[in-house]
Amino acid sequence: MTRNPRRSPPIVLTTDFGSSDAYVGVMKGVILSIHPGATIIDLTHDIGAQNIRQGAFVLGVNHSYFPPGTIHVAVVDPGVGTDRKPIVLETPAATFVAPDNGLLSEVLKAYMAGGSPDFKHPGIIPMPAQLKCWELSNPRYQRLPVSNTFHGRDIFAPAAAHLSTGVRPEEFGSAVSEVTYQPLDEPIQAGNAIVGEVIFKDRFGNLITNISGTRLTRSGLEAGTVVVEIGTRRIAGLSRTFHYLALDSSAQSDGLPLVALVGSNGYLEVAVRNGSAAEALGCEAGEVVSIFIEP
Amino acid sequence: MTRNPRRSPPIVLTTDFGSSDAYVGVMKGVILSIHPGATIIDLTHDIGAQNIRQGAFVLGVNHSYFPPGTIHVAVVDPGVGTDRKPIVLETPAATFVAPDNGLLSEVLKAYMAGGSPDFKHPGIIPMPAQLKCWELSNPRYQRLPVSNTFHGRDIFAPAAAHLSTGVRPEEFGSAVSEVTYQPLDEPIQAGNAIVGEVIFKDRFGNLITNISGTRLTRSGLEAGTVVVEIGTRRIAGLSRTFHYLALDSSAQSDGLPLVALVGSNGYLEVAVRNGSAAEALGCEAGEVVSIFIEP
Amino acid sequence: MTRNPRRSPPIVLTTDFGSSDAYVGVMKGVILSIHPGATIIDLTHDIGAQNIRQGAFVLGVNHSYFPPGTIHVAVVDPGVGTDRKPIVLETPAATFVAPDNGLLSEVLKAYMAGGSPDFKHPGIIPMPAQLKCWELSNPRYQRLPVSNTFHGRDIFAPAAAHLSTGVRPEEFGSAVSEVTYQPLDEPIQAGNAIVGEVIFKDRFGNLITNISGTRLTRSGLEAGTVVVEIGTRRIAGLSRTFHYLALDSSAQSDGLPLVALVGSNGYLEVAVRNGSAAEALGCEAGEVVSIFIEP
Repeated sequence: MTRNPRRSPPIVLTTDFGSSDAYVGVMKGVILSIHPGATIIDLTHDIGAQNIRQGAFVLGVNHSYFPPGTIHVAVVDPGVGTDRKPIVLETPAATFVAPDNGLLSEVLKAYMAGGSPDFKHPGIIPMPAQLKCWELSNPRYQRLPVSNTFHGRDIFAPAAAHLSTGVRPEEFGSAVSEVTYQPLDEPIQAGNAIVGEVIFKDRFGNLITNISGTRLTRSGLEAGTVVVEIGTRRIAGLSRTFHYLALDSSAQSDGLPLVALVGSNGYLEVAVRNGSAAEALGCEAGEVVSIFIEP
Repeated sequence: MTRNPRRSPPIVLTTDFGSSDAYVGVMKGVILSIHPGATIIDLTHDIGAQNIRQGAFVLGVNHSYFPPGTIHVAVVDPGVGTDRKPIVLETPAATFVAPDNGLLSEVLKAYMAGGSPDFKHPGIIPMPAQLKCWELSNPRYQRLPVSNTFHGRDIFAPAAAHLSTGVRPEEFGSAVSEVTYQPLDEPIQAGNAIVGEVIFKDRFGNLITNISGTRLTRSGLEAGTVVVEIGTRRIAGLSRTFHYLALDSSAQSDGLPLVALVGSNGYLEVAVRNGSAAEALGCEAGEVVSIFIEP
Repeated sequence: MTRNPRRSPPIVLTTDFGSSDAYVGVMKGVILSIHPGATIIDLTHDIGAQNIRQGAFVLGVNHSYFPPGTIHVAVVDPGVGTDRKPIVLETPAATFVAPDNGLLSEVLKAYMAGGSPDFKHPGIIPMPAQLKCWELSNPRYQRLPVSNTFHGRDIFAPAAAHLSTGVRPEEFGSAVSEVTYQPLDEPIQAGNAIVGEVIFKDRFGNLITNISGTRLTRSGLEAGTVVVEIGTRRIAGLSRTFHYLALDSSAQSDGLPLVALVGSNGYLEVAVRNGSAAEALGCEAGEVVSIFIEP
């Protein structure tokens, strides 16, 4: 096959495999065995073990920072070896290779009409109009024999490598017209407040919520007089940076420099200046966070 | 030197350096300083500190997933700076650059006759017939002055980089005719049972044993009526996937969904569906595991 | 733009972002979006969160192992979004893209006259003579809109990518004539002893001090009769390797195989043979270490 490795799109890996085992390295070996000139990048391998929802969020928020046509391989796959389908999903921006288990939900959401009845409800949904999807069933593009426990190595990595050499997605198997959709819980409107929750904490202990900046703008809740409430704490005003307190740091009776801001993910975050909010507040994923105009 | 970087084999790194320090990054800097077009892949850097046996297993099980001719750099080297030799080992499948301290034992084993008296016994053995080995002693291909504490940077990384540009292994030093061999303990046959042990737990808490699938097949122990015993637990039957219990989940009085299966490494594993077997069973490396036909 | 990707210098990333989030992956996506053929290497992403001094040490000690002209992107940036400047610093050996917050101090130190009054004192200093520096303010080379919390993605990664395609540093903004300098504390001379401290422990539990091998040579403290003191422990003599005790292991009444040596970083280290000195001694960064000729 003639190809120009410098022109082939990068292959980006997102998994829950961690970095302490050789699983990720082996996937890269399989990719290079098929396409020696492939460019391979790690998005992250520290999605919580079998945490499909976190994987879906991380993919949804971050895939657009890669070049057009990037091939994303996403493997958070508790049902490996069962009858959940391995698929390739083609969007106008990128190509995704993943199990059909909800991991692509936030990518799908970007292509669904907001008013669609399907938008908020998990289930099996018809493929959104702009997207195309195929099953990965053609053994020609698999590593044989396919194991029952490591499709990352035997199905997903080979598919990505072949795609990057120019194999067309329709060569991998039958077209797929329905797909699994498990969107994140949307924050709810309760009176004048928006009530959401912490989705994850990052390495710095910043608490990232499911309340998007877009949602705040739409609700007029981005002004200086808002209050963010988490546990028994109240934070007055949104900051621009991790460094500056927004309004009145004396609001924190114990002097904890709490900050609420719309972070680089585009979502409301709670942080502590030069420290860890997760540790200071004893919070984890699931903690309720609300935001409202100070009465 | 004329070379085509796209054709040069990848350099694959396996170490116990972890990722929290700059040691691995520095090895890559040294490689790129010699061969700017090198393709460098991490297999893993989380081999247990100075755990030569674990490194040997990981290399043995995983090196064959990389392209033919791949240059593996393996550094688990508690004796760095002592008189253990740095070597380059050429096999029909790949080239290995490593200290001669047993780290290549499982690679060597693949080329030894199974009936050889040497097969099961650790020691200094004659080089297996299909393999060639040289000492890395030519200062021309070292980073000078060579430190006594970081041969990864000063000897192994430079050797791999030069090999990847086309330098022949015999240019690095004298031929080596004997090599250190420290094979993993083989499981033992005790009556109708095979008795082995847990070698390591992976990121998911799956417990990987030293009982190979090949061994089970040979012993007729792959049928549905086998029992796997670990600690006080008995698991009835081998599963195909992490998801499905094999036979009778009620065998677990506390409802723990224990699974035994031949995993993607090719070895018997004990797992918990959607959970961590290591945590649920309180097991670590060294735990005895046996498998036998249900009486 | 015409360019030869094989000839472009590598981009090396050093951050405190850790590997559990997608921040580093996103920076790589941004780089590849600008320069698809870029070579990207991780030095380390495990600088302690917001630990500028550790980042400065790691960069200072390790940047010279990369090819001439390497573009280093360094992001340890607690003041992101405040008025600290993002800069590009050109040295005869490499190019650095970083916040102007002291992170480049050890790089700067290499170009300052040792006798300069500025050498030991933190503050804003005039740019050393051999170096050139510019502000990263040209929006043409930024990802817009620039966030207030992730300049790694929006300013530093794009700058590095554009530099690697051949954009000249002066195109990024105004020349900068002063720079932030926060050197590590130098060890002090106290009578015949040099008194320093542990800067960090590495993955093996080795304790790396701020006492350089050069300093020891200059002070005549590299001979066999020196004593290294840490806490209540005394180590007689410097070893050549982690393996051999230098002189008299019986000096350790509890048989702990303590070793003092000049490590691969070029600094005095305290180690335990086949073990962790950090654990055995209960030491962390900041612990006082002194070295003197045995009386």
